[in-house]
Amino acid sequence: MNNETVSKLQIIPLGGLEQIGMNITAFKYEDSIVVVDCGLSFPTDDMLGIDLVIPDITYLENHLDMIKGIVITHGHEDHIGALPYILQRISVPVYATKLTMGIIENKLKEHNLTKSTKRKVVKYGQTVNLGCFRVEFIRTNHSIVDAAALAIFSPAGVVVHTGDFKVDYTPVFGDAIDLARFAELGKKGVLALMSDSTNAIRDGFTMSEKTVGKTFDNLFAENADRRIIVATFASNVDRVQQIVNSASRQGRKIVVEGRSMVNIITTASELGYITIPENTLIDIEQLKNYPPEQTVLITTGSQGETMAALSRMAADIHRKVSINKNDTIILSSTPIPGNEKAVAKVINELAAKGAKVINQDTHVSGHACREELKLIYSLVRPRYAIPVHGEYRHLQANAEIAAAMGIPEENIFLMNCGDVLEFSEESAAVVGHVQTGGILVDGLGVGDVGNIVLRDRQTLAKDGIIIVVMTINRYSCTLLAGPDIVSRGFVYVRESEDLMEESHSVVANAVDVCLSQGVCDWGKIKTVVRDNLSDFLWKKMKRRPMILPIIMEVDL
Amino acid sequence: MNNETVSKLQIIPLGGLEQIGMNITAFKYEDSIVVVDCGLSFPTDDMLGIDLVIPDITYLENHLDMIKGIVITHGHEDHIGALPYILQRISVPVYATKLTMGIIENKLKEHNLTKSTKRKVVKYGQTVNLGCFRVEFIRTNHSIVDAAALAIFSPAGVVVHTGDFKVDYTPVFGDAIDLARFAELGKKGVLALMSDSTNAIRDGFTMSEKTVGKTFDNLFAENADRRIIVATFASNVDRVQQIVNSASRQGRKIVVEGRSMVNIITTASELGYITIPENTLIDIEQLKNYPPEQTVLITTGSQGETMAALSRMAADIHRKVSINKNDTIILSSTPIPGNEKAVAKVINELAAKGAKVINQDTHVSGHACREELKLIYSLVRPRYAIPVHGEYRHLQANAEIAAAMGIPEENIFLMNCGDVLEFSEESAAVVGHVQTGGILVDGLGVGDVGNIVLRDRQTLAKDGIIIVVMTINRYSCTLLAGPDIVSRGFVYVRESEDLMEESHSVVANAVDVCLSQGVCDWGKIKTVVRDNLSDFLWKKMKRRPMILPIIMEVDL
Repeated sequence: MNNETVSKLQIIPLGGLEQIGMNITAFKYEDSIVVVDCGLSFPTDDMLGIDLVIPDITYLENHLDMIKGIVITHGHEDHIGALPYILQRISVPVYATKLTMGIIENKLKEHNLTKSTKRKVVKYGQTVNLGCFRVEFIRTNHSIVDAAALAIFSPAGVVVHTGDFKVDYTPVFGDAIDLARFAELGKKGVLALMSDSTNAIRDGFTMSEKTVGKTFDNLFAENADRRIIVATFASNVDRVQQIVNSASRQGRKIVVEGRSMVNIITTASELGYITIPENTLIDIEQLKNYPPEQTVLITTGSQGETMAALSRMAADIHRKVSINKNDTIILSSTPIPGNEKAVAKVINELAAKGAKVINQDTHVSGHACREELKLIYSLVRPRYAIPVHGEYRHLQANAEIAAAMGIPEENIFLMNCGDVLEFSEESAAVVGHVQTGGILVDGLGVGDVGNIVLRDRQTLAKDGIIIVVMTINRYSCTLLAGPDIVSRGFVYVRESEDLMEESHSVVANAVDVCLSQGVCDWGKIKTVVRDNLSDFLWKKMKRRPMILPIIMEVDL
Repeated sequence: MNNETVSKLQIIPLGGLEQIGMNITAFKYEDSIVVVDCGLSFPTDDMLGIDLVIPDITYLENHLDMIKGIVITHGHEDHIGALPYILQRISVPVYATKLTMGIIENKLKEHNLTKSTKRKVVKYGQTVNLGCFRVEFIRTNHSIVDAAALAIFSPAGVVVHTGDFKVDYTPVFGDAIDLARFAELGKKGVLALMSDSTNAIRDGFTMSEKTVGKTFDNLFAENADRRIIVATFASNVDRVQQIVNSASRQGRKIVVEGRSMVNIITTASELGYITIPENTLIDIEQLKNYPPEQTVLITTGSQGETMAALSRMAADIHRKVSINKNDTIILSSTPIPGNEKAVAKVINELAAKGAKVINQDTHVSGHACREELKLIYSLVRPRYAIPVHGEYRHLQANAEIAAAMGIPEENIFLMNCGDVLEFSEESAAVVGHVQTGGILVDGLGVGDVGNIVLRDRQTLAKDGIIIVVMTINRYSCTLLAGPDIVSRGFVYVRESEDLMEESHSVVANAVDVCLSQGVCDWGKIKTVVRDNLSDFLWKKMKRRPMILPIIMEVDL
């Protein structure tokens, strides 16, 4: 597939869909490729020790000279997080709206990529030319400001990609989604619509972010005599703006706490996306100079993240803030599935310190519900529908909406990563498949941990390891030292002396038998040791630790 | 505290409360101890490789001759699961209602404890004499049949323990909770009420289990032309009864699948707690002999448990059932916090096979909401309130209800495990503290895995292990073999040859320096090796694998 320049439009998801999180899609026409988004995933529970997962971009590396640029819809990690890694491999220009670019720039700085990366800030309504493609940025609403949908114009027709979006008629910052532009595109004819499926299983309409403001005003009024700590997503600048509004109406001083919160609020503030009245923001060091009821802390940790500021306060290991009976703590976010237990843990710890904890599950999502999706389908009237962004059940629900809106079933594509969806005059079909997958990042290592290493970590995590080590005279085939047994993560050895002694006998016996039979094949001896010890431990303990025999040879 | 026989009532929670799950409470008066419940906990995420957690019963072992019996409120794992382990240590009689005892007997059989354990089935309204105590079983409702509250009569007064309960005026099996008896006890005077806090943060009233029956009828009608698979909790016999009812109205044959489901339904059926029309139940082997739309499978796995029947079907590794487009799968249970992601995974897998998946989040809980708790407080009118069963925030919410119901704050006790709450004529107070905690069960090992082993497993899980092994001549203090490096769970060695070579140099160099300086203290050599390699890997990779140096001595 290396140098083909087909005169047809191809859409190739390189991540996202079943590889949830790391959203990245290639659009190809002849010798032009445009990439939309470049996200990362967080590791699943079985990916022990992994920090994050980035997309395999073999396909892009194989078509390096065709790539005209990466176009970003908004500044969330699952859409921009892999950029620093991917830009090291393919140095191409990046296009995004102002705040999104501000957040990207913070990342590039951390990875020393600012100089080597071409960047262009794009305004809503503006179009960038990228080879055969023109890409227009359209205003949308989302749980982060400056989100954009994309109209991707190709010789084969227009594809509208919503990015992550909701319809908010009364946004906190800026204007409502540009429905008129969606309608205009729809009137002129849209080939395909790729739309956000996250909330496609939810009926109705997502509430406006502005509704949360009223709640904050009420909560602040009810807790006027107490210190207030509000935890929310760092990236939800509008939410932070509303906390700031409620706080400053009461004349409270504001502390922003948590690294990612400080980063984003600083950037948003510099770029004019959040307005904090003068002399309101104070440093955490100054907190002690004000009466508690005249302060508010805005902090990370609303999802119970172990190392976030709120968790550290709850666990009493935060260096500046200690929780007490006069604190009211508001968790202003709905737990992401999988985080419920961690959130409950933080709430329990805070409550046990006597604080009043309010779990403000706002149900104000950043994603369109069923009625909003129907609205977009009815405006855009695409020939083809390609549900994106969400688990399989969400994609399926979005496909059902598309069908209900009159799109023929054969024109609805539930794609998998790597599928090459090609559009001809008459129809569209998956015509091929390219390599995709997740590359695991562990510390500074990118891709050096794979399935074998993960499987080993799982075995080690479950039952630990037993190392059997011995030194053998290579020529005489006799034992010079050992076998010795060392274990880690298996049992508390001092309380299991009998077991360890029996294990030693099993091993010593196995080695004896081998050597006395003249077996001098180290591989064979290792296998016998492993099998005998493994059998013994399973029968005795119903456990399967990793057993690692090591033989040292000495030439004498 | 060993042989004291104080003429005061003491309540000592030995588990439950902050040690969530393993409910067990001791009641002591003079030389009599009664134990209520004997549950287990499931391991938290950081307890790698642990199968389950049982309570530390040092206190009971130290007072063995005083223990008159164990009284069980109902047959859920967090109330009976530790019995087989505890009865091996303290062989005392067990008292429970009929179905509860049936489920306990299954457990005792598995552990060969049937002969050695005295058991007595108790009816509602019946009282058993246990030393200074009399314990009466009172009918309640819960998500398992035959649940009981306890009235514990002592010379110091009556304690009412609700067990886990809800108020269901229209239960599927049997009668509604015996509110009249609660009222009668209240009228005569109750010293303390220990009540279920699980839903104390929820407003209103928990719906009757019977409401689910209508939903099943509708779902069965809508899916009359399809095979139906319903997953629910094995122990929710009433739910299963209602599935059976809907199924047999349509003349469907019923298959029960999943080990725990088969066990409980068999027991419930033998004891008359579930009625399955004759010739309705078929073996899973016979499934192929009937048209799919005339069958229903009732199965485990509604919580996404990896090895449960439904997960095996979803993953295509179930030997008898394969999912297809004509299946409708109903998940009839609300995910327990922490299981949301696993449930979503199963739903996505089933949906990807074309099945119609219905996530029937019934919101029919087995636990009393706020209005039910108020009802019980108003009937029982206790002098003291002791919230039990739930996370801290739930206990706290229950305490707030107690306060709202007029119980003075100093008479409300948010206890911790091990606290000895003692009642005198005038007041009650925590007067001491006994040893409690969780004993980890891993395979057949009970208590041989502790914090050190867990910490090792966490380190191994995160970054793997590097073993450095060498053979040294004890007398000349010279290297005979090695140092060799072996790693597991660290990096994929074949793709990281340079790193492993550099690591080897670091180690070889460290050993060289030691030996050339005449350092023959193996401990010191190990420390130098560990420190050097650890520093190198942190700087190079930002990882901290476990480093395990092993030195073999040879006498030559």
